[in-house]
Amino acid sequence: MRQLLKDIRRSPLLWLLAFVPVVLVAQKLKPEAHTLLFVLSVLAIVPLAALLSLATESVAAKTGDAVGGLLNATLGNLTELVIAIAALRAGQYMLVKSSIAGAIVTNALFVLGASFLLGGLKYHVQEYNRATARLQAALLFLASIALLVPSAVAKAGDPAAAGFTGKLSAGVAVILLLCYGLGMLFSLKTHRELFVSAEPAEAGEQPWPMGLAVATLGVVTILVALVSEVFVESVQKAAESFGMTPAFVGFVVVALVGGAAEMGSAFSAARKNHLDLSVGVALGSASQIALFVAPVLVLLSYVIGPTPMDLQFWPGAVVMVIISTLTVSLLTSSGRSAWFVGVLVLAVYLIFAVTLYLLPPQSP
Amino acid sequence: MRQLLKDIRRSPLLWLLAFVPVVLVAQKLKPEAHTLLFVLSVLAIVPLAALLSLATESVAAKTGDAVGGLLNATLGNLTELVIAIAALRAGQYMLVKSSIAGAIVTNALFVLGASFLLGGLKYHVQEYNRATARLQAALLFLASIALLVPSAVAKAGDPAAAGFTGKLSAGVAVILLLCYGLGMLFSLKTHRELFVSAEPAEAGEQPWPMGLAVATLGVVTILVALVSEVFVESVQKAAESFGMTPAFVGFVVVALVGGAAEMGSAFSAARKNHLDLSVGVALGSASQIALFVAPVLVLLSYVIGPTPMDLQFWPGAVVMVIISTLTVSLLTSSGRSAWFVGVLVLAVYLIFAVTLYLLPPQSP
Amino acid sequence: MRQLLKDIRRSPLLWLLAFVPVVLVAQKLKPEAHTLLFVLSVLAIVPLAALLSLATESVAAKTGDAVGGLLNATLGNLTELVIAIAALRAGQYMLVKSSIAGAIVTNALFVLGASFLLGGLKYHVQEYNRATARLQAALLFLASIALLVPSAVAKAGDPAAAGFTGKLSAGVAVILLLCYGLGMLFSLKTHRELFVSAEPAEAGEQPWPMGLAVATLGVVTILVALVSEVFVESVQKAAESFGMTPAFVGFVVVALVGGAAEMGSAFSAARKNHLDLSVGVALGSASQIALFVAPVLVLLSYVIGPTPMDLQFWPGAVVMVIISTLTVSLLTSSGRSAWFVGVLVLAVYLIFAVTLYLLPPQSP
Repeated sequence: MRQLLKDIRRSPLLWLLAFVPVVLVAQKLKPEAHTLLFVLSVLAIVPLAALLSLATESVAAKTGDAVGGLLNATLGNLTELVIAIAALRAGQYMLVKSSIAGAIVTNALFVLGASFLLGGLKYHVQEYNRATARLQAALLFLASIALLVPSAVAKAGDPAAAGFTGKLSAGVAVILLLCYGLGMLFSLKTHRELFVSAEPAEAGEQPWPMGLAVATLGVVTILVALVSEVFVESVQKAAESFGMTPAFVGFVVVALVGGAAEMGSAFSAARKNHLDLSVGVALGSASQIALFVAPVLVLLSYVIGPTPMDLQFWPGAVVMVIISTLTVSLLTSSGRSAWFVGVLVLAVYLIFAVTLYLLPPQSP
Repeated sequence: MRQLLKDIRRSPLLWLLAFVPVVLVAQKLKPEAHTLLFVLSVLAIVPLAALLSLATESVAAKTGDAVGGLLNATLGNLTELVIAIAALRAGQYMLVKSSIAGAIVTNALFVLGASFLLGGLKYHVQEYNRATARLQAALLFLASIALLVPSAVAKAGDPAAAGFTGKLSAGVAVILLLCYGLGMLFSLKTHRELFVSAEPAEAGEQPWPMGLAVATLGVVTILVALVSEVFVESVQKAAESFGMTPAFVGFVVVALVGGAAEMGSAFSAARKNHLDLSVGVALGSASQIALFVAPVLVLLSYVIGPTPMDLQFWPGAVVMVIISTLTVSLLTSSGRSAWFVGVLVLAVYLIFAVTLYLLPPQSP
Repeated sequence: MRQLLKDIRRSPLLWLLAFVPVVLVAQKLKPEAHTLLFVLSVLAIVPLAALLSLATESVAAKTGDAVGGLLNATLGNLTELVIAIAALRAGQYMLVKSSIAGAIVTNALFVLGASFLLGGLKYHVQEYNRATARLQAALLFLASIALLVPSAVAKAGDPAAAGFTGKLSAGVAVILLLCYGLGMLFSLKTHRELFVSAEPAEAGEQPWPMGLAVATLGVVTILVALVSEVFVESVQKAAESFGMTPAFVGFVVVALVGGAAEMGSAFSAARKNHLDLSVGVALGSASQIALFVAPVLVLLSYVIGPTPMDLQFWPGAVVMVIISTLTVSLLTSSGRSAWFVGVLVLAVYLIFAVTLYLLPPQSP
């Protein structure tokens, strides 16, 4: 417990934890203050995500490599998953799908681009392991393609074929989860040497005791779930008052909020010239959204959603995901980076964000 | 002749040749038993394709490198061509086009993916010649793109422009055939060292005598043509009774049946850690469909088809072909493979197959 | 001045300068002879573009590397810009957009493909700096993607959203210009060693005196502007009499005419086995169209056009630009070239040109 308090004292980010009780109280007192609740819930989720990530690493460090790696990989996108489940229960499928597509794009473009830029401002040219990066980029490309097949083909079919998309989405979800399982076997067991450890832990840092870590994991997950519900309830109305479209909220806001923890580790690795680690975090996170988070949400929607959710994304999201994963594949093929590459990648991300911001609300 | 019988005795696959007379007799006796005829004709085409491939290699081995290579390359996809011609004569253009697109996708995804998986289960990481694979992947990408331009642009045009697509398709076919001719010159004459020999022959195997090989080539081609006619007549009705869409039949069944011979050599090369050969067979075969089989069919349709056939594919097929060739290009850029890469490539192929299976029949 | 006359005497291309007065006089005497005026203006623009390129290099050589590079880069596509401005003033936005897309495609496919072919006919296999080419290809890909986002997403939106496309296009234009500025900083200052000098000047050639070079630059730009106006006025009617669609004129004719100067240097570098230079000129020129010429035209349209121009391209153009930049990215990943690669790249360009030639005129 003292360890937890010490970590909180040392890290200014964790001071934001004070917003967790604030948002929960505010929700009771002023359930109509959507804009306020939205801002408070964003401020509360960010430190919770960071805490979740710390706790996961501590558990992972204690349980040994294989189980630890599994935990790390599976819980790595827990925040995104919990937020999406809250949106799923509220039947806000548009928000769920936007946040899936947005998380892939944000990891592939924003996290990678900002890592290239931040690293490139410090180092003239940064080199990283080309072969590994290409393999990871190929995996991400294949995972995204698999995720998008229902959207790509259903455009071709006639609109009467709604049942087709539902069945196909469920089938794709099952195939994706099987691939995820085999991918775990691959990255944690048979070919672990190909994957850089995704631990952002400082060398000198002491992991938490097991009990504390597991307890933190449980409590924080519940807190994220509670705050996520406030977030999902308030986001639509708040977005309107900020002039944001629902697509923008899911694609940009939710993805940035949910991925705050990974971003921290990717950026700090880039500043230390460990671009391999940054690339690994960005691509690994994006692959996991496609292979794990998205299919779990589809299958969960049969249990907890008002109706089953399919994997039919709006065409703009399909285009953006494909462009992002293609970009990553083409970029990593050189194994070199400099600051201007980061600028251009961020420019594409910025143009996507501007597009979604300006998009007429009824559109997607 | 004894050589031929010996080869047949040694190879269990060739025992299936017994189905050739069976299907031809069954067609006379029970012309209405579509499902039975379909199954029998598939069982008969597979060994004929294998025999065709053996005979081609024997002729190629005798005639010396240049002519032999030419024969090997041109007759390598003879089975696909003969089946497609039977469908062309029957005016089943949907089936012809599906089988063209399907043959490219099957070679690029299924043959390559299964080679990676089969090789990867035996060897930890397999390396292959990156530069050659990239060149071949770039050629396949360009060939596919050229093939798809009429489909990609005609979507943009108004539907009134049917005459446009016909003229464009004929023009594209002529350009593709010219490229095919120049490609022969390139791979057999000026730059033959870049292309791994596509001969799957065992070192110790004795080629057939010339007369036998040529006779076999002629007789087997006629048999494939006869059986193909049964196949094409029965496939539509049989597909209905199996619940398969016409798109699925052309894309998956015809492509797998027609390419059975190449698959054998690609897979056995992968198991022997000759991934260069597997990649060469898969990419070379796919390129040949685009540069040779497809344009020949378009030009033949002016002579033997009820109306000229154009190169306008349905949008789902366009998407699948582009994804497949892009995937191959991105994958081969690393020059390394492991079993999980094969799993993901096969997963994308499986998702394509599931999509086509579920597709409402009136759709494409 | 003697230097200028000497250069003109030595270069047969510059003899075409005689057509400059001819076309201006012809325009006064026979303003209705559209076909004649079109042919004459094409013949006059080509040597003017070459002269512009010579003058720019001379100024660049005198002013030192940084300013010179800036001039060279910014004035490199001056011909394209001046022609497009003439079309912009005439409100021919279709022609402007076709020429933007066409210039990217022509540089990426035609200039690169012809360089590969011309070089490959002389050298068996040509190698070039893979890492640099990949970086440049990645920059081109990102720049093109950014340019095309409004087209890609507006298809998704409903047609009522015209205001959306206008605002988005202006925003994208500003972002592109910022990237262009940062790109200058990158290629001329912080990472100049990555970029091959784009000077096609013969080693023994003497640069012009400063005064002559600046005067030539000014006079020739005015002449290009005058001739461009004749060109733009005559092109539509002339195109009809040649049976060319407006899309073909913008995409192929304007792009080839405007880029004649760069082509010369790319091709002669390829013949000297300096494929790095050819790739640099082709990719650099294409990137510049996307990052500089296109956004400048959008912003200028607010000042000099009848109505603001947006960045919404017709779908066929989007497909062709994406295919071209993808092709370049995949091709350059091998770092090797041989003549057949050039043939296939040119075949794709030829198929694009045939498509546009056959396209029903009302289509795009």
